[in-house]
Amino acid sequence: MPRYKLVVEYDGAPFGGWQVQASGVSIQGALEAAALAFCGEAASVRGAGRTDAGVHALGQVAHLDLAREWDADAVRDAINAHLRPHSIAVLSAEPVGSAFDARFSARKRHYLYRIINRRAPLALERSRAWRIPRSLDVQAMHAAAQRLVGQHDFTTFRAAECQAKSPIKTLDRLDVERQGDEVRMHASARSFLHHQVRSMVGSLALVGEGEWSAADLDRALEARDRAACGPVAPPDGLYLARVDY
Amino acid sequence: MPRYKLVVEYDGAPFGGWQVQASGVSIQGALEAAALAFCGEAASVRGAGRTDAGVHALGQVAHLDLAREWDADAVRDAINAHLRPHSIAVLSAEPVGSAFDARFSARKRHYLYRIINRRAPLALERSRAWRIPRSLDVQAMHAAAQRLVGQHDFTTFRAAECQAKSPIKTLDRLDVERQGDEVRMHASARSFLHHQVRSMVGSLALVGEGEWSAADLDRALEARDRAACGPVAPPDGLYLARVDY
Repeated sequence: MPRYKLVVEYDGAPFGGWQVQASGVSIQGALEAAALAFCGEAASVRGAGRTDAGVHALGQVAHLDLAREWDADAVRDAINAHLRPHSIAVLSAEPVGSAFDARFSARKRHYLYRIINRRAPLALERSRAWRIPRSLDVQAMHAAAQRLVGQHDFTTFRAAECQAKSPIKTLDRLDVERQGDEVRMHASARSFLHHQVRSMVGSLALVGEGEWSAADLDRALEARDRAACGPVAPPDGLYLARVDY
Repeated sequence: MPRYKLVVEYDGAPFGGWQVQASGVSIQGALEAAALAFCGEAASVRGAGRTDAGVHALGQVAHLDLAREWDADAVRDAINAHLRPHSIAVLSAEPVGSAFDARFSARKRHYLYRIINRRAPLALERSRAWRIPRSLDVQAMHAAAQRLVGQHDFTTFRAAECQAKSPIKTLDRLDVERQGDEVRMHASARSFLHHQVRSMVGSLALVGEGEWSAADLDRALEARDRAACGPVAPPDGLYLARVDY
């Protein structure tokens, strides 16, 4: 069966998450329904990252098998036509070999987390960023974040329901930068534990607010205990930005 | 009566425009309702720009008279609390003299127009930008735009229902720049005619697509005829960015 690699953008706010589930509309489900409407076959869509409810994507990657060959641009345009009115768009489609698996072939995943650091509520960025009213010390956040880079046991920053076999992951990048009243965090790794980015962001926000020192973050990591984690950051600010193969 | 200057951000998509009207919710109406809920008085709110339905603001300015003096930050926070769940936020409030008028004291208005130049539909930027699938020549757009800068009779770029006494305006800036697949246009003037920015953007899009030459834009301006205008760009991409006093 011809396989296609899709790059997908979505506003995750209206969805119950990437994965098909009993209740709520999922992004995966909306894509499968659009593929069915387009070519009349039940096609399964597999994504690189199973983003949670409310989490967005600038460049999620998925693969899809179809019974016959189509022009890749026609696959993209037809799925997009049938996705309406969902806030999901296929940015590109390309033919790939059957060895390509969106999830297992991924070499690196890149996430962006957006904080708007201001007193006023969000209007234009509502559900697309986390608002933090207290002024954040971004240099302190960036410096502390470097202690999480590398190979660690991330049990502290892992959801109780995480299904990964091991809590040991290698974090390649965790950069924090300010652009006006926006604080942007960039996290890259081959793979992440469930809620890992949001857990790290929540703890780093405590550092930015002056509640935690960098040493407190060290202690949290070394505790290997979920109870040592700061509050988990809301899904609103999280974007699956890119996946490398 | 103490007067306050408010800087206001909004996502214009759900609203019938800035101005109070018979049908649909207006941003002005939502602000007046929030002020009434906060201090128990009917307060009228006057804005620098009467943005149309679907047009957004990063920094609309309005003024508001209250019967008694309040701490300016309390005014901002209380109005924001009562604005929920509208996608409107007061970014700042400050006391001003009674000579300050948000509309008539404005020295310069700055608008931003966002185009996303790509084939795929918009997901994250839906209702917040204009999608144009054909590749735009941004250098040609910027060069042609310079012919509109200066004092001109803008009858071609003016809505039939425009209430301004004269069609002669001085356009101080009209810059077009590309940032990845986004094309951003910056327009500044003391004041604009009704639909002027969207009319100019629509005509410049024709230049960017290669349908019009810069000379065609000249001819359209010189025609002083609404029928010579290109299609009016949708409100989705337009933002009132800032007002100078």
